[in-house]
Amino acid sequence: MKHATIIGSGLVGSLWAIYLNKAGYKVSLLERRGDMRKQNLSAGKSINLAISYRGWKALDAVGVGDIIRKTAIPMYGRTVHSIDGKTSFQAYGINNQAIYSVSRGEINARLMDIAESSGMTELYFDSHCTGVDIDKNMSYFEHNSNGIKFEIKSDVIFAADGAFSSVRYNSMQKHDRFSYSQNYIEDGYKEILLPSNSDGSHKLDKNSLHIWPRGRFMLIALPNPEGSFTCTLFMPFDNHKYCFNNLKTKHDIIALFREMFADFYELMPEIADTWKDHPTSSLAIIRCFPWHYNKTVLMGDAAHATVPFYGQGMNAGFEDCTVMFGLMEQYGDDWNACFEAYEKIRKPNGDAVQDLSLQNYLIMRDKVNDPDFILQQKVEKRIHELYPDQYLPLYSMVSFSDIEYHTALEQGKKQDADMRDFIEKHQITPEMTEIAIDEIIHKALNKEILV
Amino acid sequence: MKHATIIGSGLVGSLWAIYLNKAGYKVSLLERRGDMRKQNLSAGKSINLAISYRGWKALDAVGVGDIIRKTAIPMYGRTVHSIDGKTSFQAYGINNQAIYSVSRGEINARLMDIAESSGMTELYFDSHCTGVDIDKNMSYFEHNSNGIKFEIKSDVIFAADGAFSSVRYNSMQKHDRFSYSQNYIEDGYKEILLPSNSDGSHKLDKNSLHIWPRGRFMLIALPNPEGSFTCTLFMPFDNHKYCFNNLKTKHDIIALFREMFADFYELMPEIADTWKDHPTSSLAIIRCFPWHYNKTVLMGDAAHATVPFYGQGMNAGFEDCTVMFGLMEQYGDDWNACFEAYEKIRKPNGDAVQDLSLQNYLIMRDKVNDPDFILQQKVEKRIHELYPDQYLPLYSMVSFSDIEYHTALEQGKKQDADMRDFIEKHQITPEMTEIAIDEIIHKALNKEILV
Repeated sequence: MKHATIIGSGLVGSLWAIYLNKAGYKVSLLERRGDMRKQNLSAGKSINLAISYRGWKALDAVGVGDIIRKTAIPMYGRTVHSIDGKTSFQAYGINNQAIYSVSRGEINARLMDIAESSGMTELYFDSHCTGVDIDKNMSYFEHNSNGIKFEIKSDVIFAADGAFSSVRYNSMQKHDRFSYSQNYIEDGYKEILLPSNSDGSHKLDKNSLHIWPRGRFMLIALPNPEGSFTCTLFMPFDNHKYCFNNLKTKHDIIALFREMFADFYELMPEIADTWKDHPTSSLAIIRCFPWHYNKTVLMGDAAHATVPFYGQGMNAGFEDCTVMFGLMEQYGDDWNACFEAYEKIRKPNGDAVQDLSLQNYLIMRDKVNDPDFILQQKVEKRIHELYPDQYLPLYSMVSFSDIEYHTALEQGKKQDADMRDFIEKHQITPEMTEIAIDEIIHKALNKEILV
Repeated sequence: MKHATIIGSGLVGSLWAIYLNKAGYKVSLLERRGDMRKQNLSAGKSINLAISYRGWKALDAVGVGDIIRKTAIPMYGRTVHSIDGKTSFQAYGINNQAIYSVSRGEINARLMDIAESSGMTELYFDSHCTGVDIDKNMSYFEHNSNGIKFEIKSDVIFAADGAFSSVRYNSMQKHDRFSYSQNYIEDGYKEILLPSNSDGSHKLDKNSLHIWPRGRFMLIALPNPEGSFTCTLFMPFDNHKYCFNNLKTKHDIIALFREMFADFYELMPEIADTWKDHPTSSLAIIRCFPWHYNKTVLMGDAAHATVPFYGQGMNAGFEDCTVMFGLMEQYGDDWNACFEAYEKIRKPNGDAVQDLSLQNYLIMRDKVNDPDFILQQKVEKRIHELYPDQYLPLYSMVSFSDIEYHTALEQGKKQDADMRDFIEKHQITPEMTEIAIDEIIHKALNKEILV
């Protein structure tokens, strides 16, 4: 029986085990941490995530989507909280398209369960990888507590061991001509749990992603099934008026929330007391190439860790599985050909999802408040509604399609320029009625092709 | 007595030991390799280097320059070898300014001798660093052959352990918010030793740096004191007509040299037989930040390894010593303040010397053959000659001054644009007489300020 080693039983590693089982592979799935199904989640990772089209596609292909859907909360758009406490809603798509807030731990646990229940995946916890012998397809581990060392030889090795991948660090980085970068952005983040009302209901509309955009920093909130919201404050570590290093006392924290997030502060006056429940964490973009040597390959964050601002980290990692599986069907056991095709296809997409993520930080923290952006988004969405076959806004390409990320990025740039021209040319203003805008669109779209 | 640990006894580490001795520090100088004074040089490093102004300045400050000068060969300019065998000479500066070809091993050995002879530097060979405890100023080593482990505690730790710095890798890279990149360029290099004539004389003019620019690749030659030249072929590894991966047989090598470097081939018809004397090596740019944590700091290639095309790698590393020493005099034992100032000053210069190096590859392999470039260089040099206080060409800023690299880079860009305008505006052509050009320059420089 063919045998694969997967290093890392996180979201991508666990899903990939299910795929490999389906393809007839026996899988050894090794995890540095303990069994998360028996313990609390580790710190430093956000406890909920947004699944969008690519994620569902990868889950549905192995029949896991419906299990996850049971606890997923649709978010149909952004609720933008202005500094004066007013809110406005910006739909993400048309026809009730949504991204879905899910619990990271819940998905991960279900994926492990399914992999294990196949009888073809063996899970090893508390076992950290000390290196891979790339020439021999041998991976080496040490048990965290008893220090016992062991090795696993297999036909192929998948490293899905995250942004700080030990396989990449121990066995690829020193390889001649391995390009690598880890770039921390200026900003960090801190999670804040906004509890439910006493009756278990949500304190904010649960069907949207809430944003308090404040230019150089922002607060966001995603709903959890049990009534709470996981909120995240993103801001620079230092060198700015509003930055983490200026939040030294409870007084500083309260002052920030009173001044900048007054409506949120009303919902959570205990904010300063819970401040230390979560660490302040950093954010990095990690790029590397190649993604494989011989029969050892990187997947997910190990290959292309990104900042979280497009909600595409997990979706991109799951799409790695979709693409890899397609290539396995094409190349069979010729792993070298498979991995070469995989990295050739996925590297530009990994780069693009990182560029898109950085770009979306500016949108979320600043532009969603900008009348020009709001108008442009409105016009784009309306064109998309009226002529869905002719126009797909960037957000829809990324979140509601599986158009390659790099195509979406390029196309998005072009569309952005075209749309500015369109609005200027037709002198569209925020005051214009919807009927008037529709008329302009119909007239234009019948004569000219926008994209 | 104050005690410093220096990891790496290469060029920068050995020179820095001399500086520290001068400042009253006892130095432990540790080297992963054996004592190079007792053995052949290790492969993979070019055996000669070009010293320019910054290097001499750093050496002269501790009285070492004159010892090195004894074997240094001045190169007053480039001798460009066209494909038809014609040569032309392009002076680097004015008034016999030169860069100096020196033996890497010779300099390194003399620096070690001087450090050792002070009685204040203790050298440890064959001892590789396994890590540094940044909080405790403790560094850990293991002897290569007997496996004995030992540790050194000191007041301060300098990591001058090269492009693949073990201190950076083992003790800094996993530090939160440590930005790091290693980017290999598409091209590699192979060294070739062109022997002397049988009477010990040089086969080419020994007072210039020889270049065979061929657009996408090039051959260069630097003179050695004993009559040979160290030549280096730079070309892409693959994906080009002329690339290392297309040089599989002796026939391929001979064909390349016959076709592209016919005059060189005549001097060295045995080229194909010596092909395997040196490996084909890769070229990387390594960037990181910060350069220090607590009292452990990176110097030289460990902080800012570059590609060799401006001949500034060693010069930049030596300048780190000049700057660090100046800051030590300013900050005394406040190493944290010293290192913060050092990295703040030197990081933009490390980045700039890398950008300049990449930029100079295009110049060396291609532009030195371009009539527009040759004309512009001629005009620039003449302005510099006539008005030395008003105009300094980029090459002179980099090689014959200690203007900060980042200033040279910015100023160079501006001057390049200005000079194109100047040549166009005054319709200067290659056919113009020197007198006519001088007249234009005098007329212009009295009225307008060029830079």
